[in-house]
Amino acid sequence: MSAYSELANHFERASALSNAIGILQWDSDTMMPKGAVGTRAESLAYLRVAHHGLVTDPRIGDWLEAAGSDTALGAWEQANVREIRRIWTVDTALPADLVEASSKAISACEMTWRQARADADFATLLPYLHEVLRLQREIGTAKGEKLGLSPYDALLNDYEPGGRSARIDALFAELADFLPGFTDEVIAIQAGRGPVVAPDGPFPVEAQRALGLSMMAVLGFDFDRGRLDVSAHPFCGGADNDVRITTRYDQEDFARALMGVMHETGHALYEQGRPQTFLHQPVGQARSMSVHESQSLLMEMQACRSREFLTFAAPQMREAFGRSGPAWEADALLRHYTKVERGFIRVEADEVTYPAHIILRYRLEKALIGDEMPLSEMPSAWNAMMRELLGITPPNDRLGCLQDIHWPSGGWGYFPTYTLGAMTAAQVFDAAKRADADVLPGIARGDFGPLVRWLRANIHGQGSLYETDELLTRATGRPLDASVFISHLRRRYAEG
Amino acid sequence: MSAYSELANHFERASALSNAIGILQWDSDTMMPKGAVGTRAESLAYLRVAHHGLVTDPRIGDWLEAAGSDTALGAWEQANVREIRRIWTVDTALPADLVEASSKAISACEMTWRQARADADFATLLPYLHEVLRLQREIGTAKGEKLGLSPYDALLNDYEPGGRSARIDALFAELADFLPGFTDEVIAIQAGRGPVVAPDGPFPVEAQRALGLSMMAVLGFDFDRGRLDVSAHPFCGGADNDVRITTRYDQEDFARALMGVMHETGHALYEQGRPQTFLHQPVGQARSMSVHESQSLLMEMQACRSREFLTFAAPQMREAFGRSGPAWEADALLRHYTKVERGFIRVEADEVTYPAHIILRYRLEKALIGDEMPLSEMPSAWNAMMRELLGITPPNDRLGCLQDIHWPSGGWGYFPTYTLGAMTAAQVFDAAKRADADVLPGIARGDFGPLVRWLRANIHGQGSLYETDELLTRATGRPLDASVFISHLRRRYAEG
Repeated sequence: MSAYSELANHFERASALSNAIGILQWDSDTMMPKGAVGTRAESLAYLRVAHHGLVTDPRIGDWLEAAGSDTALGAWEQANVREIRRIWTVDTALPADLVEASSKAISACEMTWRQARADADFATLLPYLHEVLRLQREIGTAKGEKLGLSPYDALLNDYEPGGRSARIDALFAELADFLPGFTDEVIAIQAGRGPVVAPDGPFPVEAQRALGLSMMAVLGFDFDRGRLDVSAHPFCGGADNDVRITTRYDQEDFARALMGVMHETGHALYEQGRPQTFLHQPVGQARSMSVHESQSLLMEMQACRSREFLTFAAPQMREAFGRSGPAWEADALLRHYTKVERGFIRVEADEVTYPAHIILRYRLEKALIGDEMPLSEMPSAWNAMMRELLGITPPNDRLGCLQDIHWPSGGWGYFPTYTLGAMTAAQVFDAAKRADADVLPGIARGDFGPLVRWLRANIHGQGSLYETDELLTRATGRPLDASVFISHLRRRYAEG
Repeated sequence: MSAYSELANHFERASALSNAIGILQWDSDTMMPKGAVGTRAESLAYLRVAHHGLVTDPRIGDWLEAAGSDTALGAWEQANVREIRRIWTVDTALPADLVEASSKAISACEMTWRQARADADFATLLPYLHEVLRLQREIGTAKGEKLGLSPYDALLNDYEPGGRSARIDALFAELADFLPGFTDEVIAIQAGRGPVVAPDGPFPVEAQRALGLSMMAVLGFDFDRGRLDVSAHPFCGGADNDVRITTRYDQEDFARALMGVMHETGHALYEQGRPQTFLHQPVGQARSMSVHESQSLLMEMQACRSREFLTFAAPQMREAFGRSGPAWEADALLRHYTKVERGFIRVEADEVTYPAHIILRYRLEKALIGDEMPLSEMPSAWNAMMRELLGITPPNDRLGCLQDIHWPSGGWGYFPTYTLGAMTAAQVFDAAKRADADVLPGIARGDFGPLVRWLRANIHGQGSLYETDELLTRATGRPLDASVFISHLRRRYAEG
């Protein structure tokens, strides 16, 4: 057997494990009775250790060396070797005791965080978060040494392969220049139009679910290879050809679940559109977190908060709930779903103010990993940056630096991918509309075929064949820049 | 670490895998979209191979030898060593190529069987079933050589540790003597009482589910450690502290789902009542298939088809569906749920005629494994025995020897445990009633506490501490005999 075949077989086996983990993780969040938490933790820990053992198998190093000089490999196989090398380099960078210490510190910190957030008590969290931060820095340093990257860039690289903070600094600087003034402008414009009338509830959960399922079908979700369920925190998970998205229903506001479902459906379409031939291989995986988020935001923000989509969807919404009236007209719905407001909470933020929440977190986590500020000063730095970027000051840390689980759970380097994703979404949607003049008219008549076909060909079906920059250049004509996103915001919020 | 601790740790790890397999299997039957079938098969195959590798680890042999002479072990630990030795002896008896050949033959045979059953076409199935049988005989021979058992007893031993066909022959002979005449008698008695009025539907699925959940709670199901869902074939599965039962709803006949739920709840109470200290160890598992089936039949047949239970349940049923009338009185429900009829299909059979279906299958499979009759003659032997035991002749093999998946799927030696379970259920329920005079009155007022407490102490909480005979002798005063079951049938059907 060739070295390449050995690698492919080996990672095929690893995918059998990661698919099992994906379903068990989904089950933990949707179906599992609470008394099973201990049993499940043992199963997941066992499978994760087994998976880590597989992808750090010392034979992989030899196979990679031999496969690297195999001139008979095609482009996909070569890219697969590159992706396997990427995984192997990172996963073998860490000594086992560092992995274990980090895992324990995260468990303790997460547990403390839940109470600390409820109590708005940063002081109690501080020593736990300090330990997580210290170990994240150590992990970043170990990986960075193997990759020739700074500790922060090495952490970022896990979520955004090839992503570099120097580049993000520039992109985010452009947004940080533009957004504070623009937010003032939009809020003034929207205030000038008078109050927004919103559909008022209650909206029965069954009707919300039926509407969500029917809209998933409109967007092109393949129900033979996926499901919709309920969880406390919506996500897209599952396994290869088994893509499971979740939502949660608010009886007073159906759009919260519905827009969430559209968002997760964007993620799901990416997963369902990955190349079947390499579905279980590293090269067949989604390219990066920013590209993944671009697909969810493309659906939720670009496509489904558009006048075209709401023109199509308004009658469906009225029918789903047996309601009508001024609040149920497409124009009113559009105003409602594009309302801009300054708020403290990231996950409740609109499209215009969201990047401020991200830029703030990005700048802080980079400084903290880089040891440029003490963790104890983080809450005041957070609040100062909220004032600078959004003009508001959190009254306490529950509404400030304690709101997200990312840092307590060891997700350092993840935050920037949200806003990179928003920018990518704008650029990709713009390219799709330019490539096929029927994309927008299709959405207006509830036909997402033109859009999804283009995404399949240019993004989903490409898996990890190219690095992110090349993927984006091939699909949109250039690497990521901030201008298309800024134009989109101008058009929708200042000129629309 | 002591040899015993090594064994216990090793099997604790194995349970992490088997619990993962249990949940993935449950998911396959309840939640999984059909397009995921290939991905899931790969995950399950991987985990099963890994599990087999763990429980056949050569170090186990050394640990067993050392632990066998460890005089410091308590009774539970000694029994755990005995159970581990049992597993290890059986699982290491088979060469890998035999396991693989059998697994492939079963896959091919199952697939052919689905169509052959639909077509009532035994001839097409014959060569596939012949191969499965041949390999089952080979497996039984290999295991039998290590255990000092005949090939059939070695297969039986996998489901019923310590079970022997000589003993079953005698028990079943007693039933086969009694039942044909008794069936005639009961059918005549029931006919003399005039027609049974049954509640007529439709019965909405949501109301059926709510009633099922409320009755599960009455029986003592712990919803913090389990769930109820829907599947094509009802089962009790899941994992430690995560017991998942299923049912299917018939809009025209709510009792089908309800009695199925009571049946699976009986299994679930056993699983939820296993000793927590040894939950993940072999000694903490359910004793055998016949004891497991005794717990489901005790709930479904002994407790829930009783006048006491139906007196309690009738008002709840009326309220669940907002219905009333003569068919909804306890007496009418009791007549409906204890109606005896001769039929071709095992899974639709009542308590009186069910054993005939089992005795027939048991005698046939024993003769086939023992190479005492050619497989090609099985259909005519089946039909002859149906005439002898039940007095009816299947018009085709779909209603005859093609109806069950057990043989095509390699489940040889399993069938007798159903009727051993029915007899055990009668004997255990009888002992519980004698031990606590409040068992029946409790059921009549919807309080299963007295019954379940006795079962917890005498059956569920005992795990595999004792061999089946000793478990039953301790709980009921003697090993299994047929007389209590026969008395129960007489009392309920001829004297009731």
